[in-house]
Amino acid sequence: MATASSAYQKLLSMGTKIVAVGRNYAAHAKELGNAVPKEPVLFLKPTSSYVQSGGTIEVPHPLESLHYEVELAVVIGRKARDVAEATAMDYVGGYALALDMTAREIQSAAKSAGLPWTVSKGQDTFTPISSLLTKAMVPDPDNLELWLKVDGEIRQQGSTRDMIFKIPFLISHISSIMTLLEGDVILTGTPEGVGPVKIGQEITAGITDLVDVKFDVQKRQRTVNN
Amino acid sequence: MATASSAYQKLLSMGTKIVAVGRNYAAHAKELGNAVPKEPVLFLKPTSSYVQSGGTIEVPHPLESLHYEVELAVVIGRKARDVAEATAMDYVGGYALALDMTAREIQSAAKSAGLPWTVSKGQDTFTPISSLLTKAMVPDPDNLELWLKVDGEIRQQGSTRDMIFKIPFLISHISSIMTLLEGDVILTGTPEGVGPVKIGQEITAGITDLVDVKFDVQKRQRTVNN
Ligand SMILES: [Mg+2]
Ligand SMILES: [Mg+2]
Ligand SMILES: [Mg+2]
Repeated sequence: MATASSAYQKLLSMGTKIVAVGRNYAAHAKELGNAVPKEPVLFLKPTSSYVQSGGTIEVPHPLESLHYEVELAVVIGRKARDVAEATAMDYVGGYALALDMTAREIQSAAKSAGLPWTVSKGQDTFTPISSLLTKAMVPDPDNLELWLKVDGEIRQQGSTRDMIFKIPFLISHISSIMTLLEGDVILTGTPEGVGPVKIGQEITAGITDLVDVKFDVQKRQRTVNN
Repeated sequence: MATASSAYQKLLSMGTKIVAVGRNYAAHAKELGNAVPKEPVLFLKPTSSYVQSGGTIEVPHPLESLHYEVELAVVIGRKARDVAEATAMDYVGGYALALDMTAREIQSAAKSAGLPWTVSKGQDTFTPISSLLTKAMVPDPDNLELWLKVDGEIRQQGSTRDMIFKIPFLISHISSIMTLLEGDVILTGTPEGVGPVKIGQEITAGITDLVDVKFDVQKRQRTVNN
């Protein structure tokens, strides 16, 4: 598994936002009882939610589990505003494999109340991410197999081929709403098979033939700093 | 109006997120028909949405207006995680006056559909902000008068005294969910009186005796970069 670890550190650490796309695989929208959207569902995650492979995903009190969502992350290589689909790929600086960890109970309550998803999606360690894959390493981002296992058992397996909104469209669309900056990340949505991972379990995930990651899942230890 | 312009550039430009608090003034929650929350309603805005005083607030097609929300911005001075209320003020690096511009129609549709507020709150120029006020300039942040005028006519006037969740609680609470980093901003919510500002109008706003800001409101000009 060749990766570009120092490039990861540099480009991803420059980023100021993660723009995540919801419901971008028809089969996943369906499994959560959602309609397939006419335009991308967008939400923000803070860069403080990153955790690198080998680290720990923390489950905050009083939860016992989080939902995993394996996703292809597109890392922006240079400032993008009002970019056309035809040139959108010029703004890609690389890729990564990421998990969009979600406190599903909190998200469900927020959705019912018409409230934001921030607390359910934005906590520290809720965006586990691999090292950076350079563009040269990923000649065909529309044909990648994403997979995820819990304690060695396969839970998600899907192809980026099934994304409803493709990468050039997403970059063009998002850049028409907000400027994307060097190191910003687009999480492109998850295929079907999402479900809970419990305290004490282990997640492995990857892009077949390109990269894999490993995280343990633990109860968050909280020490208030007086 | 003494301000610290270079400090603004430095501290605010380091930030990677804006954590905004909704419904933090009882009278404003009521005017939008919302219940007063038991815990803070939190959402994220990207730092790409900042625009400095003297700049232009852009109304995206096909909207004709945006809603203004005048708010006290708390600028974080150093990394804060699991901070106690008692020491929370030590993590403040300064203050600013900010507007939480909102595409209310888009937000209302999102709320009804249980969708995130990102598109309604996160577009470029949707967070107009003043220069940084140092802590020394703001001895009593819980007793500041915020005001906002459209074309010289007063629309909002309220005191930070009426915030439901005070600054130390907000820092402690948010830092228990996500790490706050140097330059990150908390928007502390808006008093009553929110309403539309139309293309061609001018907004002035301020914190009485401390700072004021001025923005014109224009239709966003979009040129797609091929
Ligand atoms: Mg951000
Ligand atoms: Mg997701
Ligand atoms: Mg607001």
